[in-house]
Amino acid sequence: MSRYPLMVIGTVAIDSVETPFGAKQEVFGGSASYFSYASSFFIPAELVAVVGSDFPSEYKKILEERKIGLDHLNVLPSGKTFRWKGKYESDLNTAITLDTQLNVLLDFKPQLNQGVEPEFLFLANIDPVLQEEVLNQVKRPKCKLVACDTMNFWITSKKDDLLRVLKRVDLIIVNDGEARQLTGQPSLIKAGRMIQDFGPSIVVIKKGEHGALLFYEGNFFALPAFPLEEVFDPTGAGDTFAGGMVGYLAKQNVLNFETLKRAVAYGSVVASFTVEKFGLERLRLLSLGEIEERYQAFKKICHF
Amino acid sequence: MSRYPLMVIGTVAIDSVETPFGAKQEVFGGSASYFSYASSFFIPAELVAVVGSDFPSEYKKILEERKIGLDHLNVLPSGKTFRWKGKYESDLNTAITLDTQLNVLLDFKPQLNQGVEPEFLFLANIDPVLQEEVLNQVKRPKCKLVACDTMNFWITSKKDDLLRVLKRVDLIIVNDGEARQLTGQPSLIKAGRMIQDFGPSIVVIKKGEHGALLFYEGNFFALPAFPLEEVFDPTGAGDTFAGGMVGYLAKQNVLNFETLKRAVAYGSVVASFTVEKFGLERLRLLSLGEIEERYQAFKKICHF
Repeated sequence: MSRYPLMVIGTVAIDSVETPFGAKQEVFGGSASYFSYASSFFIPAELVAVVGSDFPSEYKKILEERKIGLDHLNVLPSGKTFRWKGKYESDLNTAITLDTQLNVLLDFKPQLNQGVEPEFLFLANIDPVLQEEVLNQVKRPKCKLVACDTMNFWITSKKDDLLRVLKRVDLIIVNDGEARQLTGQPSLIKAGRMIQDFGPSIVVIKKGEHGALLFYEGNFFALPAFPLEEVFDPTGAGDTFAGGMVGYLAKQNVLNFETLKRAVAYGSVVASFTVEKFGLERLRLLSLGEIEERYQAFKKICHF
Repeated sequence: MSRYPLMVIGTVAIDSVETPFGAKQEVFGGSASYFSYASSFFIPAELVAVVGSDFPSEYKKILEERKIGLDHLNVLPSGKTFRWKGKYESDLNTAITLDTQLNVLLDFKPQLNQGVEPEFLFLANIDPVLQEEVLNQVKRPKCKLVACDTMNFWITSKKDDLLRVLKRVDLIIVNDGEARQLTGQPSLIKAGRMIQDFGPSIVVIKKGEHGALLFYEGNFFALPAFPLEEVFDPTGAGDTFAGGMVGYLAKQNVLNFETLKRAVAYGSVVASFTVEKFGLERLRLLSLGEIEERYQAFKKICHF
């Protein structure tokens, strides 16, 4: 039996991104990459994902430097890594997908090694059918917290599968558009409570420049966004929010309203760094000291 | 010489309002009415405004019950009271004006009585030319704080007059749309700082369901909105936000970052009550105890 304090399943990708401030081809991306990089400031995650033979060795090194576990990173020698091409126009909150090449994701069957038991599990944005396959391999209540993310594409195309997953997760992290789409409810306060009825007792709704809302059982918490004059590249903001939040929780290993509030603030802080540069660039320069400093500054901005 | 701790100049109106939840004809409204009603929970204001002979005596009584000073409420016997007709569709943040009858406002020349000296002055939403006329009658620095509001109509039609007023005020309270319109700046963080450059060292940007931002000299504060499942009628929300905020400040009679943050929170709390019922209905049932209770609950929602 091997226990993992934190495990994530999701995508590892090669991205091409255009923003109003410039464009970059072939940068390291993917929901699980961003999540695990962000969570590594608190606790290294075990990464469950698939890549092809074209996966650059320097990307692997980036993960290894952060002590991210790669025992469950499948390399399919005959396949190509998942590729995403997207752009952001003036509304930096919404990514416009230009091209998606699923490649190795098409045949991905996530398989946990014998005797593996994660204590905290994050189902990053990926096909809910794959999220469910991982859930089926995990023993509750030994796994203390299952959290997930999703996106508009899955809400539209695989809502039933997604709802089955939601019944079995403790925490969902979505953005405002996804919360509204999932519930048909324009009021985010109502939407958050409605999503709780779908299963998760903890719901986080991210609102970009307007901050985030946390619903925990009957409790409510609202956090503004850390004030940034410029958002350079929003790619990975959501995944690194989740990485900061769930990484902090896994590190604390305590789940109550107080740790959840702090976790939302840490998630928000990490995401606020992510968007300052392209891709993972800013996070690669980041230290836990800087995170702590911004976290303390954030308190001063919110408390009265 | 008579000193007034708080004075407001603005409109006193008879409103007709449609919301998705119903419609009401001929209800008591106006920027100065809402402001002074809200501020009266902290300190009674002296009301500088004009009405016609049709102004209902029961409206006057409503103001008197709250000890609002009416020495500067002009009644023009030959005129009709200002009327506003508007509606809100699904986006409750934006009022659609259906009809405006300026009536007595057309000839309004606000005139402060001899020797009058306000300590806190609020220039509620009204023609910036009238705001300036009042400013010209006020002695600084005996008047410790001049605050103002405005609206899209004045930003479009009288921007130069408005900018002259802004040079002379300490605090402006606007909503997100107005801040963007005034500066041409989509980022509210940048817009807030830009408005400070126009004159006021204190800028508050209200964001409806997303809360409010405060810029004070080099300091920044962000407050989420108090969570409401339903907004019944948003009329007067902005004016009562200002009334709660400036009323609290006038009562404290201290101006620093700490009192300003609290003032924004009190403004937000009072506005959150306003929108729960039509017009002034909810505020007429409100007590300072309820305000304090919600203020304390608000802290729990924001602090981590």
